[in-house]
Amino acid sequence: MEKGLLIVVSGASGTGKGTVCKKLLAEIPTLYYSISATTRRPRVGETDGVEYFFLTREEFQRWIDEGKFLEHAEVYGNFYGTPAHKIEERLERGEDVLLEIDIQGALNVMAKKPDGVYIFLLPPSLEELSNRIKNRGTESPETFARRFKSAVGEIETGLRYQYAVVNDTVDAAAEKIKAIIAAERCRVSRNAALFQNLTNSKEM
Amino acid sequence: MEKGLLIVVSGASGTGKGTVCKKLLAEIPTLYYSISATTRRPRVGETDGVEYFFLTREEFQRWIDEGKFLEHAEVYGNFYGTPAHKIEERLERGEDVLLEIDIQGALNVMAKKPDGVYIFLLPPSLEELSNRIKNRGTESPETFARRFKSAVGEIETGLRYQYAVVNDTVDAAAEKIKAIIAAERCRVSRNAALFQNLTNSKEM
Repeated sequence: MEKGLLIVVSGASGTGKGTVCKKLLAEIPTLYYSISATTRRPRVGETDGVEYFFLTREEFQRWIDEGKFLEHAEVYGNFYGTPAHKIEERLERGEDVLLEIDIQGALNVMAKKPDGVYIFLLPPSLEELSNRIKNRGTESPETFARRFKSAVGEIETGLRYQYAVVNDTVDAAAEKIKAIIAAERCRVSRNAALFQNLTNSKEM
Repeated sequence: MEKGLLIVVSGASGTGKGTVCKKLLAEIPTLYYSISATTRRPRVGETDGVEYFFLTREEFQRWIDEGKFLEHAEVYGNFYGTPAHKIEERLERGEDVLLEIDIQGALNVMAKKPDGVYIFLLPPSLEELSNRIKNRGTESPETFARRFKSAVGEIETGLRYQYAVVNDTVDAAAEKIKAIIAAERCRVSRNAALFQNLTNSKEM
């Protein structure tokens, strides 16, 4: 059996990674969502063990020490990490795993998992990006300015990914990612068994 | 504007390239079908200028001399060629071009057009492949045996393509190819303009 796909959805802050991933999970029930850990505080409506594992700095450090992370990084003064346990297990079972992750984390995963599928979400325009960061409403003006400048700078990092998807509407972006998943399943490099079965069959 | 996609659908004889491509053209009206030229005789139901340009050997040689082919090759004693005119013109205009082509021809195009999308159709099983070649009903037993053996041998060539699609049902195969087209449009390498627009915009 072929391994599952590691699908990494990433992008600058405010490009709507979370919303797009929620849509994907609703439409592809077999997709396993890998929950990240963070030391940042939950936003309104976020639940521990659903959007993130919300850890204290001490707990986060313990997870590092115990080798529980595929990667971890500091972003805007908070720590974020991708728990490795379960991801490999699911992939080996042929299940697809979805990872929603910031850019720094995605680049770290890319180095360790070159056969993953790396998708970069883009805002439809810088104006829209600015609006989205503002509308989040959880930032002070200083935090907003810093975050917007950083987000614009981050867009160039997308050139290191395989796929770029413009998040103009959540539905359209999710459809494109579904197409990418379907296409990646057809990659010759992921279908060695298929060729082996056809060419090793008995003479007819 | 980004260039159109050159989509090359190929595969061993009897894997149903023609039927799958017809389905694709019916579902994606903007797709431009590049008609090949051949010196083989039309099969029942085939029309000059629709499935192929049916040429005499002399006409075919004249097209070669006039540099009209992107590639040409001899297969089973007949000549097949891909007319270059129009393909490049359409691609430059941003239109997608579909090329249905035998393996030898596809490998020739691959060498000249490395940014094309190369899709290899596979039969669901060797038994099914044998049935399909038989059911075509246009072959003598000798031709059948030669063609079947050759088709099985050709399957390994698929490892040189980017994508492999099992043609178990025409609908499913066409859906997969549509997903591949949608995914390829999202490739970062095909979206330089998108990144440039976002990163060159004025400061906000």
